[in-house]
Amino acid sequence: MTDHRADVEAITRLKYRYLRLLDTKQWDEFATCFAPEATADYGGLAFDGPAALVDYMRDNVGEGVITMHQAHHPEIDLDPEDPDRATGTWYLHDKVIVDAFRFALEGGAIYEDRYVRTADGWRIAHTGYTRTFELTWSLDDPAGLKVGGPGAHTHA
Amino acid sequence: MTDHRADVEAITRLKYRYLRLLDTKQWDEFATCFAPEATADYGGLAFDGPAALVDYMRDNVGEGVITMHQAHHPEIDLDPEDPDRATGTWYLHDKVIVDAFRFALEGGAIYEDRYVRTADGWRIAHTGYTRTFELTWSLDDPAGLKVGGPGAHTHA
Amino acid sequence: MTDHRADVEAITRLKYRYLRLLDTKQWDEFATCFAPEATADYGGLAFDGPAALVDYMRDNVGEGVITMHQAHHPEIDLDPEDPDRATGTWYLHDKVIVDAFRFALEGGAIYEDRYVRTADGWRIAHTGYTRTFELTWSLDDPAGLKVGGPGAHTHA
Repeated sequence: MTDHRADVEAITRLKYRYLRLLDTKQWDEFATCFAPEATADYGGLAFDGPAALVDYMRDNVGEGVITMHQAHHPEIDLDPEDPDRATGTWYLHDKVIVDAFRFALEGGAIYEDRYVRTADGWRIAHTGYTRTFELTWSLDDPAGLKVGGPGAHTHA
Repeated sequence: MTDHRADVEAITRLKYRYLRLLDTKQWDEFATCFAPEATADYGGLAFDGPAALVDYMRDNVGEGVITMHQAHHPEIDLDPEDPDRATGTWYLHDKVIVDAFRFALEGGAIYEDRYVRTADGWRIAHTGYTRTFELTWSLDDPAGLKVGGPGAHTHA
Repeated sequence: MTDHRADVEAITRLKYRYLRLLDTKQWDEFATCFAPEATADYGGLAFDGPAALVDYMRDNVGEGVITMHQAHHPEIDLDPEDPDRATGTWYLHDKVIVDAFRFALEGGAIYEDRYVRTADGWRIAHTGYTRTFELTWSLDDPAGLKVGGPGAHTHA
């Protein structure tokens, strides 16, 4: 019998590792969080494979782009039909700060992920979120802050 | 013997579900998180039954009122005298944004909840919090931000 | 055999208790979270014993200094060589608000903690973090916000 609790713990750790490696820009290790066929859709910013996703992050979230991605409220369910598949819902709180452009973003989102057990352990099969809100502003003009509601998305 | 760990996990999932349904405004499902006799006290905004609470949210937190309620740091204890009762302490981080009024609020609070096992699973018997801080401001005038200390509360 | 899961849960509860007591300024109870030989290093603000740390907090984080310390993404590992030792990585989100000086700070950081099992249960042996970012500003002049990148630290 599979130990469901150990699987949920391993998937939770995978998510925390993935977000820590993203925000600390450790791209080679970040790439190991994904299954070979993984896909992603961040509110419309979509990737059909992990290489494209990792390359995008490496190119667009480098030095000078501060990100904070904290995922809360895990609701993880193993697939009752397939012990090597699982789904996870999370509640994201994120920030992006680019001081060179005095750009700031803060948002919330609901993640709907899929995970797969591989020979190397659980990996991300799909990750994607839908915004609950998104605020964007210039650090030089905070009164000009723009409020985006559910489904908003500003690409980094 | 009761599996304490499964109870704590079920209560944790209940809390996450309740907050996700609140922030995504799914009121009918939100209502199912409460026991029939449930009470609530959000820093002085009190309800003596779940119907009044749900009606308040439906009326006051509709389209155009963005909320983010993320609850962290669960400290959940089963009642050693009654296996169908439990308490939970959480650390809330919340935001309210109403763009139409350029209103913004951000705060922290310590939740003190009570849970009860019903025929349908664990439900909220009481939820309530005390503010650790509360900031309110106009998005058009961020320098006018007002700082509220412990116990502060601005009704939505 | 040690129940690893119970140890991880106890360490997690210790961390939540420590942060709750810090932000609610319950210093005598806060002091009980540390092992007698505990050390700390908050991005360069270092302490070589728990008494010095607790005294510092009591003196510098009193009434009028609002703090929010929320720690997410626990990655806790028991020492495979020593069942009474463990390490923990966490992702901090913190705020400091001092209305009297209209001072505000917000940051993120990666905690690298060590824990030890004592006769009274798990205690903090070392706690320390490295900033991922740190924002500081005057509440009266939000457009003057200063952005600190990885490793930044403003002492309270």
